[in-house]
Amino acid sequence: MGGDHGPPVVIAAVARAIAALPGSVSFLLHGDEAAIGAEMAKHGDIADRVQIRHSDKVVGMDEKPAQALRRSKGTSMWNAVEAVREGEAAAALSAGNTGALMAISKLILRMSADLERPALVTSIPTPRAVTTFLDVGANIDCDAARLVEFAIMGEAFHRAAHGVPKPTVGLLNVGSEDMKGHEEVREAHRILRQGGLDLDYRGFVEGDDITRGAVDVIVTDGFTGNIALKSMEGAARFMNGELRNALTSSLPATLGYFLARPALLKFRERMSPPPAAPLLGLNGIVLKCHGGASDRDFAQAIRVAADLARSDFSAEIERNMRRLPAALAVEAPAEGVAAQTVPGEGDAAQGAAE
Amino acid sequence: MGGDHGPPVVIAAVARAIAALPGSVSFLLHGDEAAIGAEMAKHGDIADRVQIRHSDKVVGMDEKPAQALRRSKGTSMWNAVEAVREGEAAAALSAGNTGALMAISKLILRMSADLERPALVTSIPTPRAVTTFLDVGANIDCDAARLVEFAIMGEAFHRAAHGVPKPTVGLLNVGSEDMKGHEEVREAHRILRQGGLDLDYRGFVEGDDITRGAVDVIVTDGFTGNIALKSMEGAARFMNGELRNALTSSLPATLGYFLARPALLKFRERMSPPPAAPLLGLNGIVLKCHGGASDRDFAQAIRVAADLARSDFSAEIERNMRRLPAALAVEAPAEGVAAQTVPGEGDAAQGAAE
Repeated sequence: MGGDHGPPVVIAAVARAIAALPGSVSFLLHGDEAAIGAEMAKHGDIADRVQIRHSDKVVGMDEKPAQALRRSKGTSMWNAVEAVREGEAAAALSAGNTGALMAISKLILRMSADLERPALVTSIPTPRAVTTFLDVGANIDCDAARLVEFAIMGEAFHRAAHGVPKPTVGLLNVGSEDMKGHEEVREAHRILRQGGLDLDYRGFVEGDDITRGAVDVIVTDGFTGNIALKSMEGAARFMNGELRNALTSSLPATLGYFLARPALLKFRERMSPPPAAPLLGLNGIVLKCHGGASDRDFAQAIRVAADLARSDFSAEIERNMRRLPAALAVEAPAEGVAAQTVPGEGDAAQGAAE
Repeated sequence: MGGDHGPPVVIAAVARAIAALPGSVSFLLHGDEAAIGAEMAKHGDIADRVQIRHSDKVVGMDEKPAQALRRSKGTSMWNAVEAVREGEAAAALSAGNTGALMAISKLILRMSADLERPALVTSIPTPRAVTTFLDVGANIDCDAARLVEFAIMGEAFHRAAHGVPKPTVGLLNVGSEDMKGHEEVREAHRILRQGGLDLDYRGFVEGDDITRGAVDVIVTDGFTGNIALKSMEGAARFMNGELRNALTSSLPATLGYFLARPALLKFRERMSPPPAAPLLGLNGIVLKCHGGASDRDFAQAIRVAADLARSDFSAEIERNMRRLPAALAVEAPAEGVAAQTVPGEGDAAQGAAE
């Protein structure tokens, strides 16, 4: 029932997914039975792969998470997540209110990691492939252990979603030297280096490495991640606007634009946001599809959900999470040793980040 | 002597600036007398406005700040900043090593604000004008008072550099509600709201507001600012690369590209980084010009330096800084009051940021 378009897009996406995916995927559709039924009638051949679960109530797109949570029981969103807990569904997918989906998922499924709330991961295009980037918005205050949890979850997600056997992992910072950044990030760096986790950790990366594809998975706290993501989205929007202005600024430019139009449309599609972001750290698979998703986007999100459900994703996370207490217990080198590696840095120890 | 090009660019820029600026601007050029003299011979009419101050030593572009600092006395960079302290120059400008310039400036001029090191400010293009954005790289751990200092300095800079009488100020966060973000940012928000500072503070802004131009000045800590800036630069570089690929992907697209080329070059120029960033919080005006600056960029940086030197910039900052202790002493509302404004938020109090 969620998203900007509601049932028409979701059901068209289900029809696409059924056509594209091997026979083993079937659907529980939670929401208004009449609205869903009317849309399903347009796709006659999907009925045997779909069950409708009626609910009278929906979570509004603009409700505050806490407000939505209080009256969420019995909504289509609640029921979809509950079906994951009950083992009726292998994954839940929603284009609805993100904050409400997080709060409801956390309440119903509980966290498997030691996070405040589920981590939100996104995929950023790069010249070679995509960067998995997290946390982009849920966990503001992150200590070193939380950052390491993000690394474990993001790495398992990247493997499941993109089929990369051993994804490389980087930690977002303002420079690549060991002494850069604040305490939490330096401590997480040390644990990832020395903690004996099963990760291909490559060290610190910087903001421009997100779109460069320097590593497969980039980890940061939810404050920095949200701001970096929105900054990039804003920069892309601004550049698109300026590009449009430039290409309509003169007759030759406009003519050029029409000639280049198919290529530019392909360019724009490549820049568009990913269709689905998983909520990581829950005891169950929940994905958020963006509100404006088309049926094609939503169908792609269904494919990601199916890939996650079929992968060894949750077990891999659990396996690495069990190593975390031992990794956290590895002692930091004594002050004297650390001081020896950067003799006399003193005042300028952190250096200037440029 | 600094930057990618050294004296040829700097002296060509001085010639440009002398031609463009009213008669009152003159120059001390610090560096190798022979190299400077040879370049000056190409611009015969500038000799009466320029004094050469010879120095044998230079700071290397790749030296670590601490290392550079130890052997910096008598370098051209050291002498240029010292001339500001001695009152011989109204502002110092360098295209050299940023970290070394910060460390040397801090040592010679001392901080006027209570910062670890000078704040670095940048200008981001927006559809309407530019956003002044700071701190982009020097101060990693910022408490609420530091963020308020950035607001005071950034606002005065924006007025001096862009002639806006009363710039609007925003604080970078993951959402616009009062309870969003971490403690430091919420506390700074409260001080900026209630502290009686002479600022047109508009509240929280988000990452995409940087390029939207929602406010004139956007303030954040050096960790987040550096990562947001580099993320945007990376996104812009990636988009330019993809655009180039798109426009050479077919014959019509390439033909279109040639027709649109002048407009696209103007577009690229509009996206290029600003020529100069002031180091804020020092007892004196120091500007960093980017290393790859052309003589035109460097001449524009000279204009900004002259504008700052002529403005009431330093006095305005000092006036507002004197109000800071009183602003910091304004009591936070009692917990009960705060709780009343967000009844029952509980677990989801910070909400999810999307």
